[in-house]
Amino acid sequence: MISPNRAKRPEDYRTYSVMHGLPELDPNCVFCPGNEDKNPDLCRDICRIPNTPDWQLRVIENKYPAVTKVPLGAHRDFFHSRAGFGEHEVIISRKHNEPVALQSTLHLENTLQLFKQRIDLLGKDERVAYSQIFHNHGKEAGASLVHPHYQLIALPFVPPHIHGEVAGYYHYYQTHGTCIYCDIIKMEKSLKDRVVYESERYIALCPYSSRLPFETWIMPKHHSPRFEWSDDSELKHMAFILKTVLGQLYTKLGDPPLNFYIHSMPYIRGKHTQMEEKSFYHHCTIFPRIANWAGFEFGTGISINIMPPEETAKFLRDRLSNI
Amino acid sequence: MISPNRAKRPEDYRTYSVMHGLPELDPNCVFCPGNEDKNPDLCRDICRIPNTPDWQLRVIENKYPAVTKVPLGAHRDFFHSRAGFGEHEVIISRKHNEPVALQSTLHLENTLQLFKQRIDLLGKDERVAYSQIFHNHGKEAGASLVHPHYQLIALPFVPPHIHGEVAGYYHYYQTHGTCIYCDIIKMEKSLKDRVVYESERYIALCPYSSRLPFETWIMPKHHSPRFEWSDDSELKHMAFILKTVLGQLYTKLGDPPLNFYIHSMPYIRGKHTQMEEKSFYHHCTIFPRIANWAGFEFGTGISINIMPPEETAKFLRDRLSNI
Repeated sequence: MISPNRAKRPEDYRTYSVMHGLPELDPNCVFCPGNEDKNPDLCRDICRIPNTPDWQLRVIENKYPAVTKVPLGAHRDFFHSRAGFGEHEVIISRKHNEPVALQSTLHLENTLQLFKQRIDLLGKDERVAYSQIFHNHGKEAGASLVHPHYQLIALPFVPPHIHGEVAGYYHYYQTHGTCIYCDIIKMEKSLKDRVVYESERYIALCPYSSRLPFETWIMPKHHSPRFEWSDDSELKHMAFILKTVLGQLYTKLGDPPLNFYIHSMPYIRGKHTQMEEKSFYHHCTIFPRIANWAGFEFGTGISINIMPPEETAKFLRDRLSNI
Repeated sequence: MISPNRAKRPEDYRTYSVMHGLPELDPNCVFCPGNEDKNPDLCRDICRIPNTPDWQLRVIENKYPAVTKVPLGAHRDFFHSRAGFGEHEVIISRKHNEPVALQSTLHLENTLQLFKQRIDLLGKDERVAYSQIFHNHGKEAGASLVHPHYQLIALPFVPPHIHGEVAGYYHYYQTHGTCIYCDIIKMEKSLKDRVVYESERYIALCPYSSRLPFETWIMPKHHSPRFEWSDDSELKHMAFILKTVLGQLYTKLGDPPLNFYIHSMPYIRGKHTQMEEKSFYHHCTIFPRIANWAGFEFGTGISINIMPPEETAKFLRDRLSNI
């Protein structure tokens, strides 16, 4: 529900900086260099940038995992349950006080490479159906530690939102014979008013049904079901557009608390059907946590968004030259 | 997903008081007595408690409505939209600094009576399909004003969560020939470990699939599809159990930010079928806003709850005598 009657301009949502006044290294932070022994690396080699003595990115197991490597299992009585099987990893960026928005494009590119490697690796376990990568920045966005990090949760089932997207995708494809995301991009490019930024190979846009103020999607401009299938050049371009959008949010809203996550096609084992290869379209969703969900949202499942996507896109486009 | 591995006890989630240090009357508060002229009453008569000179509860139009009385309409192009028709009311409780948990049972009973009257009245408009009543307490729970109030939003469609419950209900009824909520209550009464409190006619329990820490449901012990069908005696009993649960949360967690809402059967016009009369079961859902939804929850639609319902129920049962 888009309800823009609060009469606030986008710049009125400027917040305090999540990272304000933090040092580059905090000896008390378990994610900071010097405390590596408290959290053993899961993959030391691939996280090192060639020709540097120090790590720039690390992967560790979450100390308080939401899911663990328990045996698969289910209990069926009046109430049903499943065993909490899965893997819960944390990907740490080196500098304590450097939010993703301020990291170099090269560092972001390496981060995306690492996402790809971990998601590929987790998918080799046949019990895993889906891996969700996400980033929480700031307390209001659910981050318990301020040090920049990502989380990766591998699950033995496809989560409801991804399942819903797959089902919607199939339905649209069956009805129209085309990809809904390709059609959305074509439409948004012609309308222009919800496009934030367009590079040679990627596009950033504010979705028509934005759930939250300043919600922005990043998508490749070529049909691409799975994030992990991106090649080096694609990841380089994706890093650049991610940095562009996060940079605009950082500059214009004052380093707001935010989340982002990537939706990708669920793992498929064996030979892919043509339908499967054509299906889905990976995309990265970004939103600052400026408006809090209230009783209405939790009660009804409807989000009241006080910031129309056209206004958000205009606001984020400002001082970007290629639109 | 219930993930109780953060090794915190329920009492560790004690928060600051939302109402700390506030006066009983704040002349700058638009909801306080003295500022009535800024927001005209929608129904002065029924909000006055007989034999008192002053109002105890008021109903006004929301100054920043999420929906308004625009003509019904829909636009169908590549993107679809519907006109934002609806009504958005605010129900105000008199005292600026008296959270619902500390209000008298009589005042709560009058509040529930007022909910019933407003929901009944809104339902007389045939364009309205559902009315959602909800309460936001504290900034983290989405309340923009601290003065205790409720909101009521009437919509021309049945919201996704209620639609989902109706669909699930029908499916269960078709399969088993019984009411799922009646069966849940029977089961919970026999298991006991998720029951918080049981009065003669109502029960409070922590649901098996609790989405959020300390989530609690209040339900009548007799089959009752629609909240508005409750009679005076039922509303009295409901007020008492609501006060009991909110009082326990207030005492044990320190007046936490919280939401509650009531789910009721959507409006049905004309003669009810037996199926419809048997269907649904109204219930009130309460949860403090102690854990913030993060990227994982928004990305997947799965809520990670670090507090098992059995532990919550035990914690809230403590020093209540009838279990």
